[in-house]
Formats: sequence, structure tokens, C-alpha cells
Amino acid sequence: MNTLLGLDIGGTRLKAGIVNAADGTLVRQSSRPTPVVPAAFDAAVLELLREVIAGETVDGVGIGTKGIVDPVTNVLKTCPGTLVFLEGRSFPEMVAPALDGRPVTVAADNDARTALAGELVWGAARGYREVVMLTLGTGVGGGIVAGGRILRGAYGVAGHLGHYTVDPRGRSCMCGNRGCLEAYFSAPAIEADARSSVLRGCMSVLTTRFLTRPMEITCEAVFDAAAEGDAIAREIVGEALVRLGGALAGMVFMLDPEIVILGGNITRAGDDALFKPLAADVNARVARLLGRKVPIVKQQLADGSAILGAAALVVGAGAAAGPH
Amino acid sequence: MNTLLGLDIGGTRLKAGIVNAADGTLVRQSSRPTPVVPAAFDAAVLELLREVIAGETVDGVGIGTKGIVDPVTNVLKTCPGTLVFLEGRSFPEMVAPALDGRPVTVAADNDARTALAGELVWGAARGYREVVMLTLGTGVGGGIVAGGRILRGAYGVAGHLGHYTVDPRGRSCMCGNRGCLEAYFSAPAIEADARSSVLRGCMSVLTTRFLTRPMEITCEAVFDAAAEGDAIAREIVGEALVRLGGALAGMVFMLDPEIVILGGNITRAGDDALFKPLAADVNARVARLLGRKVPIVKQQLADGSAILGAAALVVGAGAAAGPH
Repeated sequence: MNTLLGLDIGGTRLKAGIVNAADGTLVRQSSRPTPVVPAAFDAAVLELLREVIAGETVDGVGIGTKGIVDPVTNVLKTCPGTLVFLEGRSFPEMVAPALDGRPVTVAADNDARTALAGELVWGAARGYREVVMLTLGTGVGGGIVAGGRILRGAYGVAGHLGHYTVDPRGRSCMCGNRGCLEAYFSAPAIEADARSSVLRGCMSVLTTRFLTRPMEITCEAVFDAAAEGDAIAREIVGEALVRLGGALAGMVFMLDPEIVILGGNITRAGDDALFKPLAADVNARVARLLGRKVPIVKQQLADGSAILGAAALVVGAGAAAGPH
Repeated sequence: MNTLLGLDIGGTRLKAGIVNAADGTLVRQSSRPTPVVPAAFDAAVLELLREVIAGETVDGVGIGTKGIVDPVTNVLKTCPGTLVFLEGRSFPEMVAPALDGRPVTVAADNDARTALAGELVWGAARGYREVVMLTLGTGVGGGIVAGGRILRGAYGVAGHLGHYTVDPRGRSCMCGNRGCLEAYFSAPAIEADARSSVLRGCMSVLTTRFLTRPMEITCEAVFDAAAEGDAIAREIVGEALVRLGGALAGMVFMLDPEIVILGGNITRAGDDALFKPLAADVNARVARLLGRKVPIVKQQLADGSAILGAAALVVGAGAAAGPH
């Protein structure tokens, strides 16, 4: 396995690239908009794959996607949102025409788990056998490494850490549960909290800036206002952080990881706004029983991480995890 | 491995027995009070082991204990409560004198994880590869089977499901965290809730029965009053159940188990008071995303379960889990 192909099927863009398995370098990559018309989808995927393969011999294909993939058949079982038309599709069949009939290993999985696979093979989780990873963005994804292997669960659902219940009577979540972490600590949740305070006329720079255009509030703008010392913004971020800290503490007690990795757009908030206060809260919760602190670090793969993570599936994330 | 010795080191009693590995029958058992004086402890353990061994040749020794055991050395790393004097002790060294110098496999682990090991080898988890088990009693213990193996985590702490944070700003827990499941759904927590309502003079049969002796309220008495239709008791039990339901939903999203097993004294509350309402709540939370319901069943091992669980450690819980 030297030359791998990684494909990331996102809600807005299809990304693909050729990865050198030896060092995790992205040799070549391309992308295009994700067609939302079923008929155009396969054609766009094949065109993209042929573009990045460029006649080279590929040893394996890894695919990251929204939704839940059957661990054995690599069929997409369920897929939320605009890609719902892909449900029931077999990924090996979908990409076969781009491989000119050669028998190539194909592995597909949820994109939160591919992010973890990438970190495990080439990034921040390398060499660890017990890892919890959260991807904080529009949603909250996650992945668990136990005994050096990425957990998939009985039906491919394991690692849905965004649906950790932090408040059993709390906010409705899109998943059907109440009080999921994702309903508090995600970009839409933080934006909704800020929007509510703006529309109530709270005395805040957020109100000054967004009263006439409340739908334009971004999670980044809320973190920025908090960093400027705005009391309302600090409270919104602080409340969300307490939910994340409590949930992470529970995950640590359940899984006893060597390291916690955070990825996703919200991690751009940085050390002072996110990593330091979060680590202080989590460790205040767990250090007494654990007898140690748990490091909370940022994901290492940056540019092309979705493609690298997909490709890492084929490396066999479990086998690639070295001793520690 | 035919004849196994199981030893359970409890806060109040030491229990030991000889187990037939082939069918999990308890051939012989005995017990005695746990000495709280360090000097008397080893003597009591050895006397008990010699009594149950009774000259027979033992192929392996499994030990269940409070606290956290090092997975590699079988040394007790931390131990709460009255058995704190055992911290730092090596279990293989402790039991060696009862084995007359023969080299015998010795394995020790937390008693919540031994309970799971017993169910995995001879009980309700037999044949499953993805399992979550909670032991509901004075505390809430737990264990996780993933890929057929019991998770131990990086430092032997994995499976502390009683410290799942269900309310990040909630009640202080003995572990140092806030809002742990155990602070809401455990016998002492439910009794404390009932005691509080009695001492506030709430109109309830609990007040009638316990006003003059509030320290005698038992968890069982609260469930009994709820079963009689008492509104206060039903509210206390219902609130605790919502915490348990929310936490279990989060665990299901994280681990995607085929089955959830509940053990411990509180499960005596039975189907109508515990299992049915809990299963309804958990599945209302998870069924939409999972596309299926998760069975919640009672542990199967009853008499001698602590001894059987300890003995099951030596069988090698992972290897014993068959295909499913």
C-alpha cells in the first residue's frame, strides 16, 4: 500500500486526493461542488477521481462521508440532509468505474471517524492506543480509539460523541434525543444563543453589531466578542464550555484515554478561549479519581485533512497504531 | 483451565469459591467479614482461600475488588473507603501462600468489571461483542465490551459509567466531579432525595413512615411507595430515572452496544418500576438516529455472581466471547 486515494463526500464539496502512505503527504488534490441531483452525483465523483488518479496505479481507496456506513459491506445505511439520496449505495460499486476494473481495497466510514483515522496514522493520535477525539463545528462528531482500534460499535454508530446527553431534560436535538452536547456546543447552537440575546436587546457588542442582521451572527464573532471582554458573549461561551467540559469528563471516566484531541472549525478559537479553560475544567472534574491530568490537544492534520483521513481508513488505523 | 478460584474483596465481606470453568457452576463457596485492620486482612484472605480450595488443584485465581487495579501488574493502585490500606498491594503476592508455591495465573480487576466478565462468560452478555453494563446499588459501577473485549483504558479506569456527567453544574460527587449519574441514580442518592422530602414534611406515605426515623429510609422503600402510587415517591424515582435514561442514551450513542445489561440491588425494583420505563425513555432518545431499539436486560448471574465474575477474569473474557 503505497499510493492511496482519499475521497471526502461533503454536503457542499467533493474532495479527493492522492496520498503517499509512507509519510502522509498529499501528492495531488482536487475538489468540486457536491451535486444535489442524484443523476449528476456519480458522474461528478468519477470525474473527480479520474482527475486526481491521472493514470497512476492506486493501491487502496478510502472514503469519508456523512451518515452511517455498514462496517462490513461499506454500504451507506443512513445519511442526513441533502445527501439522503445516497442511502443504500455501495461505495465500492460507486468508485469501481474509476479504477478500471482493478481489484482495489475500498473502505468507507463516517467523516468524524475518518478524521480520527487520519490523526491516528499521521497526526496527533499517532502512537496512542486510547484516544477520544471530538470534531467541533456545525455539528459535533467524534471517534474513540480503544486498545489501538477505532470503535465502530455493533452497527457502525459508535463514536457519536456529539449526542452525549449533557442535560436529560434539555434542548431538543435533531437526532431525537434531548440535551445532546451538540445542542449546546456547536456553531449553530452558540450562534442561536447569541442571536437570542441580541433579539432580547442585551447590552453587548453583539447587539450593536448584529441587531439589524441577526442571521449573520457567526460562532467566530461570538468568540471574538468574548475575547474583547464582552460580558454577554463571555457568558454564552462559558455556558457552552461548561457543557463541553462536563461531557468530556464523563467520556474520560468511561474510556480512560491517554489523550483527548479536538478538531473542527471551532478549535480556531485557540488556546486562551478554548483549550486552556476547557482543560482546567475537565481536569478539575477528573484528576482526583484518575490521579492524573488528561492532555487536550488540537488535531495536527490541517490542509487536506478530510482527504488524508479517508485515505487512512485503508492503512488500517488499528494496525498502524504503534506501541506506546 | 478447569477449576478456578474466585475471590471477591468487598467492603464488608470477603467471598471466595471454586468455579467449574466449563459450565460456570459454583462448586463450593464461603465468606467471612472483611477485616478493617490491615494486619488481620491477609490472614483472613488466606484462611478463606484455603477453606474453599480444600486441597484441590486450582488452575487460575480471579480477584474482584473495589478501586482501580493496574492491568499489567495486578497491583491495586487506588482504593476508596475502608480498604484504602490495600493500596499498593500486589494481588498475585497476596494470594500466593494459599497456592503452595504452584505457578498459577492470577488476574485482578475492579468489581464492576468482574461483574461484566461473569456475564460475558456465563451470563446475559454471552455471545455478544458490544455490551454496556451498569451495576446500580450503593454506587453505580459499569463496564464496556467493545469488539468482544472488556475495555480497561489507558490506566485501568475505563468503564466508570457511574461518573457519566448528566448535569455539568449539578450535585457534587465523591469523585470530585459534579453531576455524576451516581449522584442521582444510586441508593444513597434516592434515599437522600426521599429524606429531604420527608424532612420538608411533603405529603407522602414516606413522611408518614419515616418522619421519626429519616435515616432508616431505604431505596427499596422509596420504590415501594412509588409502586403504591405515592406522588412524591413517584416524582423522586421518575427524576432519577430521567437521569439514568439520558445517561444511557449518551452511552448508546458513544458505544453502539447490541445490548445493555443492568445489575445490582436496585434492579430488584423489577420490570414495571425500572426496566420498562427506562427502556421506553432510552429508546425514545436513541431509536431515530440508530434506526433500531436497544434491549435493556437484567444480569443473569445471581447467587455467587461476585465470585463467578472474579473467576471469569481468568477465563480471559475477551477470548471467551463467541461470534454473534
